[in-house]
Amino acid sequence: MSVSVSIIGGSGYGGGELLRLLLGHPYAEVKQVTSRSHLGEYVYQVHPNLRKRTTLKFCAPEQIEPVDVLFLALPHGQTQHKIAEYAALAGKIIDLSADFRLKDMQAYQHWYGTAHAAPEWPAKFVYGLPELHRAELAAAHYVSGVGCNATAVNLALLPLLQAHLIEADAPILAEIKVGSSEGGAEGNAGSLHAERANVIRTFSAFGHRHTAEVMQEMGVSQVSLTVSAVDLVRGVLATVHAQVKSGVNSKDCWKAYRTAAAENPFVRLVKEQRGIYRVPEPKILAGSNYADLGFELDESNGHIVSMCAIDNLMKGAAGSAVQCFNLMQGYPEDCGLEFTGLHPY
Amino acid sequence: MSVSVSIIGGSGYGGGELLRLLLGHPYAEVKQVTSRSHLGEYVYQVHPNLRKRTTLKFCAPEQIEPVDVLFLALPHGQTQHKIAEYAALAGKIIDLSADFRLKDMQAYQHWYGTAHAAPEWPAKFVYGLPELHRAELAAAHYVSGVGCNATAVNLALLPLLQAHLIEADAPILAEIKVGSSEGGAEGNAGSLHAERANVIRTFSAFGHRHTAEVMQEMGVSQVSLTVSAVDLVRGVLATVHAQVKSGVNSKDCWKAYRTAAAENPFVRLVKEQRGIYRVPEPKILAGSNYADLGFELDESNGHIVSMCAIDNLMKGAAGSAVQCFNLMQGYPEDCGLEFTGLHPY
Amino acid sequence: MSVSVSIIGGSGYGGGELLRLLLGHPYAEVKQVTSRSHLGEYVYQVHPNLRKRTTLKFCAPEQIEPVDVLFLALPHGQTQHKIAEYAALAGKIIDLSADFRLKDMQAYQHWYGTAHAAPEWPAKFVYGLPELHRAELAAAHYVSGVGCNATAVNLALLPLLQAHLIEADAPILAEIKVGSSEGGAEGNAGSLHAERANVIRTFSAFGHRHTAEVMQEMGVSQVSLTVSAVDLVRGVLATVHAQVKSGVNSKDCWKAYRTAAAENPFVRLVKEQRGIYRVPEPKILAGSNYADLGFELDESNGHIVSMCAIDNLMKGAAGSAVQCFNLMQGYPEDCGLEFTGLHPY
Amino acid sequence: MSVSVSIIGGSGYGGGELLRLLLGHPYAEVKQVTSRSHLGEYVYQVHPNLRKRTTLKFCAPEQIEPVDVLFLALPHGQTQHKIAEYAALAGKIIDLSADFRLKDMQAYQHWYGTAHAAPEWPAKFVYGLPELHRAELAAAHYVSGVGCNATAVNLALLPLLQAHLIEADAPILAEIKVGSSEGGAEGNAGSLHAERANVIRTFSAFGHRHTAEVMQEMGVSQVSLTVSAVDLVRGVLATVHAQVKSGVNSKDCWKAYRTAAAENPFVRLVKEQRGIYRVPEPKILAGSNYADLGFELDESNGHIVSMCAIDNLMKGAAGSAVQCFNLMQGYPEDCGLEFTGLHPY
Repeated sequence: MSVSVSIIGGSGYGGGELLRLLLGHPYAEVKQVTSRSHLGEYVYQVHPNLRKRTTLKFCAPEQIEPVDVLFLALPHGQTQHKIAEYAALAGKIIDLSADFRLKDMQAYQHWYGTAHAAPEWPAKFVYGLPELHRAELAAAHYVSGVGCNATAVNLALLPLLQAHLIEADAPILAEIKVGSSEGGAEGNAGSLHAERANVIRTFSAFGHRHTAEVMQEMGVSQVSLTVSAVDLVRGVLATVHAQVKSGVNSKDCWKAYRTAAAENPFVRLVKEQRGIYRVPEPKILAGSNYADLGFELDESNGHIVSMCAIDNLMKGAAGSAVQCFNLMQGYPEDCGLEFTGLHPY
Repeated sequence: MSVSVSIIGGSGYGGGELLRLLLGHPYAEVKQVTSRSHLGEYVYQVHPNLRKRTTLKFCAPEQIEPVDVLFLALPHGQTQHKIAEYAALAGKIIDLSADFRLKDMQAYQHWYGTAHAAPEWPAKFVYGLPELHRAELAAAHYVSGVGCNATAVNLALLPLLQAHLIEADAPILAEIKVGSSEGGAEGNAGSLHAERANVIRTFSAFGHRHTAEVMQEMGVSQVSLTVSAVDLVRGVLATVHAQVKSGVNSKDCWKAYRTAAAENPFVRLVKEQRGIYRVPEPKILAGSNYADLGFELDESNGHIVSMCAIDNLMKGAAGSAVQCFNLMQGYPEDCGLEFTGLHPY
Repeated sequence: MSVSVSIIGGSGYGGGELLRLLLGHPYAEVKQVTSRSHLGEYVYQVHPNLRKRTTLKFCAPEQIEPVDVLFLALPHGQTQHKIAEYAALAGKIIDLSADFRLKDMQAYQHWYGTAHAAPEWPAKFVYGLPELHRAELAAAHYVSGVGCNATAVNLALLPLLQAHLIEADAPILAEIKVGSSEGGAEGNAGSLHAERANVIRTFSAFGHRHTAEVMQEMGVSQVSLTVSAVDLVRGVLATVHAQVKSGVNSKDCWKAYRTAAAENPFVRLVKEQRGIYRVPEPKILAGSNYADLGFELDESNGHIVSMCAIDNLMKGAAGSAVQCFNLMQGYPEDCGLEFTGLHPY
Repeated sequence: MSVSVSIIGGSGYGGGELLRLLLGHPYAEVKQVTSRSHLGEYVYQVHPNLRKRTTLKFCAPEQIEPVDVLFLALPHGQTQHKIAEYAALAGKIIDLSADFRLKDMQAYQHWYGTAHAAPEWPAKFVYGLPELHRAELAAAHYVSGVGCNATAVNLALLPLLQAHLIEADAPILAEIKVGSSEGGAEGNAGSLHAERANVIRTFSAFGHRHTAEVMQEMGVSQVSLTVSAVDLVRGVLATVHAQVKSGVNSKDCWKAYRTAAAENPFVRLVKEQRGIYRVPEPKILAGSNYADLGFELDESNGHIVSMCAIDNLMKGAAGSAVQCFNLMQGYPEDCGLEFTGLHPY
């Protein structure tokens, strides 16, 4: 039942998280992992949490051998140039980058500012969010990853759209707060601790690329994402504002969110009247694959605030990828994804 | 030119900040400061930054003697029961609490859930935001403080409303991110470091009390405040979403914000094309009285994102109070408020 | 092969971590968990990471039924008064408190300031650090927990003492930096986020109670612990200064540390010449049971700096307790303790 | 009474802090400030706290014109190559780098690994710690800056050595915890927020270069500095362990520390029996020039723990430099250094 897997691009944060998950996965045998910048180094020298868990060393992409499932975790824009090569190495591919998420090549050009290098390929990929494409994923050979911010918004909208509580063409405003690991292991001047600590920085008022994934996947047309950096390493909280249809009340919402939580093993509804943790919070999700949802409906005017908290490296990247892997392989959906997050954190 | 001042309620965060400012103010002579819970202790035992700056001890409220200007920094709901007593002690009063901010007693009852105990008093108070009431403050005897979140929203809206770029009755959505000092020195279970660290917690989806101050002061009717706690001690960022009137372009906005910055010594416009600090950020404002404003206008649809960053204990509380004090006394508006904030922080 | 377990005192941080581990343990069936302050609440309302993992509710201690193994996670000083009652409920007991760690009742009185209420009991308990008592634990019925700071120091000293590289009666200075979760879920005024954030606070210059555990377990006589709070939730780093015996060189040290890492599944040696993670760091250990060791020897004068990083709630409390449970039951030593920590964090 | 000043190297953290202080200094007129990497940019684009405080732009070092006092804030190792040029521009120079701190050129070579390029110059510089060289500074033309970690240790030792409570040749162990701004505005891979957040990293077990400054200035021969990074931007706490002479008791220590605090305007003694702030803590010193001292003496064995907290960019760099400037010019010692730090922070 086990399969061999390799990872292209293993020294970044997404790749490191994939490694952690796949090394602990009962049915995955990790064969090779690449990194040009850390060639020849032990994997645990870059990802120190993996010490005593593996003696793998980083190899060059050229050294990758055929394998059952190939995970790609390269920076955006690279994979599309090599996808044919990779497809020759493995019958199944899961790509964490943005290269194969968008199906409409005009939309790709609009949001990424350049024509796609392999425009025939995106259509072959299933968008890797199991909560939207569970059945397709079971039959998929090629799966794209998901944008972390897009995922938080998509899952915040999921109960509302599936239960038809909001109109798809109504204005939706998503206010997203994100941790520093979204910036990646390379970082930039603003990622320096002394600059990034204590920060509340609305670095993208609108026009964030993940908007395209929300439009494509949720079928909404008037959605805007505003993204602010806050002082946290892992975590995204999307606070999404929308207008429910006339007549929709709290009970309808409760039912919609409960349904979403019941149908999806990694979706939970958090809406408590007491205690410290009454609403979804990313801090308790670090390392876990859960997406915690919550909502508040102002019945006086129909304003609904839907919240979704995730760990951007898990449910927003590597965790969803492994969940897709499980679906593709017919393993239990939560296989290798059992870690529940920490309290306190 | 100097005046004597005393502070009722000096052991909280707002009171401590007042103390810091007034002890360094060239024209204020701090006579007495009260605290029931720290009675008899040196002020610097509670506010350790004031060591070597004062040998004052906390006294009881009953011991307060007549003084030129009395600052009140008690928890909300207490001052209204004693305002007549306080007024007998000082010809001028500046109250940091919420007790005299709202002029409409029905609104007060609606937002604070109880009838006001001294309904004839609020009308005597000028709302203490100099950017809105500079002239009135110069003649005022009684000045109320401002809500910190309300101030961030009010100043974010100021250029847009003063230049008539948005309609007062259009929907406005303010997404506010706040530090832990807003919770006060008493705190609650959720304020414990192990629970509050690393947090992104949308604790108020709508219905925050400061909404009433925004409605009253800006004359807007459809405004909603959403407040999220993030990991920071001092600071508020309001990211305010609105719709500009048809035909309004970026140039109009630049002009409106520049005008606000030119007319108000503590308002700055932050809108850079390069560097790390391109947008308003509260982190560099800790201890300063500045309100940093910025904006992004999506000319394709009229969606404007207006940002205002402040230190909640300064421009959002004690700093504005001292600014009002300066105006009331005819001192230079920035007297005692010269500290510029730190970089890095 | 499975056993039933219950937890007395499940709403604190140690109890919550025990719950997390035991709910995920393949051979433990969690029957009951108590909390007086959260009686009747769902466990996941207090420990929100456990939502969807359990529908247990907190019960009262009086409701606890007989069980195979009873875990006690009460505040220090309480268990000793009820130990006979608890022993009647379960054949095996693992107590996380300090009540049964010290074997010398005079030492107990000296360090805890009061006579022990059940002085015949401590001798029945094995000190629950597997790295020191693996064989005894396999046969134990009663196991005491470990002090988190003591554990970091004990493991930092372990290679040096086992390889006889330092004298047991030489002066040893342990400088310990700790996160806020050590303060417990109750906290105190200094635990408030606004006071505890950004902190470096040497709150115990010497005389910390855990000193007694180091003296007892390592047989050292002149050891001093200095403890400083830093801004982190989970984690302890002990930086221990000692003098190696004349003639001891780096090679001897390498051998000693490598031996310790080889003999103990949860001990790792971290001593890299490149990369970011060259020394032990608690941040990557959050949620994991590893103790990462490192050292630097100044061969010019024999000054050795031995470092040990742990998660105080895991290896310093609940993790070691479950490791003891595994040894007592004959399960694999790392059963239920597989989580490897996160990078980045 | 005013003088003209310029700054070579104004885009780093030390240079930025100098700018902040000198722009607010009543007797300093800032003429020019250089930065190669930010040539032509407004100073406030790099140091956003200075917006509305100056319209200066960064110029090139070659453009610097003659001036009364020249401040140098270049990275270590650069100034020594140009000191003659700089001396031709100004009669008085204050250099923040390490180039002219050490007087013994063999020691310089030992600690910095290279021969000094201008060995005749260090002797002309007074070491810029007013608490040690107040009288000399009043007559000095050339003043060197101080190492931040060295300053924390030197001031922790000051009362003990000046009162002859410890022997100068006894072993002294300084455990130093530092914030991220010590790493400078350039940073390195380990300075990235996602790696540096939540950190406790003993990056220098011994052999830190600042050891040489402690030996030179305090005349101690057996001192070792251990430096650990913690999660904070500004601040250093030195926890220094030493052995008092036989017969020394707590009263002697109190007297020594009180004397140091009385003789030095920026030294405070913090030793409280109640409240949250009982010991020196850097967090409340951010932006201030204070050095807070404290101690605990174990009378049973003579072990003294002396603590000193400072802001590394202030008392550990730019603050001390401005204090020296005041002494050199005959201004009040605290001129321009009045900011008292914030509570809470």
